[in-house]
Amino acid sequence: MAVVTLFGSWFSPYAYRVIWALKLKGIPYEYILEDLPNKSPLLLQYNPIHKKVPVLVHDGKPICESSVILQYIDEIWPQNPLLPADPYDRAVALFWIKFADDKGYLMLKFYQTDGEEQQEAVKEWLEMLEVMEEHALIGGKKFFGGDEINMVDLAFSFVAHWLGIVEDVVGLEIFEPHKFPRVNSWIQNFKSIPIIKENLPDADKMSAFLKPGREKILASKSN
Amino acid sequence: MAVVTLFGSWFSPYAYRVIWALKLKGIPYEYILEDLPNKSPLLLQYNPIHKKVPVLVHDGKPICESSVILQYIDEIWPQNPLLPADPYDRAVALFWIKFADDKGYLMLKFYQTDGEEQQEAVKEWLEMLEVMEEHALIGGKKFFGGDEINMVDLAFSFVAHWLGIVEDVVGLEIFEPHKFPRVNSWIQNFKSIPIIKENLPDADKMSAFLKPGREKILASKSN
Repeated sequence: MAVVTLFGSWFSPYAYRVIWALKLKGIPYEYILEDLPNKSPLLLQYNPIHKKVPVLVHDGKPICESSVILQYIDEIWPQNPLLPADPYDRAVALFWIKFADDKGYLMLKFYQTDGEEQQEAVKEWLEMLEVMEEHALIGGKKFFGGDEINMVDLAFSFVAHWLGIVEDVVGLEIFEPHKFPRVNSWIQNFKSIPIIKENLPDADKMSAFLKPGREKILASKSN
Repeated sequence: MAVVTLFGSWFSPYAYRVIWALKLKGIPYEYILEDLPNKSPLLLQYNPIHKKVPVLVHDGKPICESSVILQYIDEIWPQNPLLPADPYDRAVALFWIKFADDKGYLMLKFYQTDGEEQQEAVKEWLEMLEVMEEHALIGGKKFFGGDEINMVDLAFSFVAHWLGIVEDVVGLEIFEPHKFPRVNSWIQNFKSIPIIKENLPDADKMSAFLKPGREKILASKSN
């Protein structure tokens, strides 16, 4: 096994966080693409608690949970830092990363529901976007941390790319750009970084992959 | 306002995490006890996103989310470290802190339910205790990190003290010590640390406080 090995899947936003972090720092790594319905014995051995990607294996030792992996990467390879050097600024960044992590459930909640439950998911999405717009992106910043991309941008990537795909699958728009102009600018800035735009799962392919899954889930609920 | 001010409540396990961290490091602080149904304007100003305790204010700047506050405290005041120095050991500690944070919802889920929902909460509690027993506390360790208390112990404190209180309120035992001998030893070790045992909310007082709340919640559900 290579010195740095990443277990990921082709559509997990959490695996992409780690891909981008490694590439932004110029760290070569071996990528093991997991087939999630048939997880490899190695993945289950390395992440026995959550049995999920991403897992980073460095010098033979596994690290799980993407936000923990990102902090580890930033400590081991300090070039192109992903967290601010100032302890207070770092605490603010970690606050937003936790906020993004805690809202990650909204993707499935929107993908898997219709009717009243869907309305609730939409309401929670709008509340989250409002917080990003009114609290996290104020002050004319290009990225969450200022002029440069950092770990907070990686954490919010599900808003920049995955939300649009799930909207397409569900057939309902949550993110109206004119209502969230700062978030909209941030999405453009984020996706204009070469390492981001060259390493994103294909929207059409994901949409085609996710549509039958949603239909199956809704059908099983109505039975 | 003092150089270090903590906004807390008399029963929040998250506020106690910060109290213990400051005391373990010998940092003097002003404590502002919030009355949660009537939160102070200052608390709302300092934590506009979550409107929750704890908030630590250091040199006039607020930090929210207990696990973020603990990391900040450990950086600003490095004496009696709360996280391991080795980056890999630190990643393992952050993994468990995130695990504990992600399971915090189980307290309310157990407190606020009966019937089928309660059974589900009990099942999830048992799964969590099993993970602590079989994965986090192996190797004859006194604490999660070895011989000394660290941030992971503070994060799991809701298992050591608050669970027993909610069991009493609900009238149902989840934690049977003989089924989780390592967790049970850890609870004894944790509560034998003077700064912990001298700074815990009174169990009888909490129980008396929480009982009418549960009855009200269950009554409103059955209507």
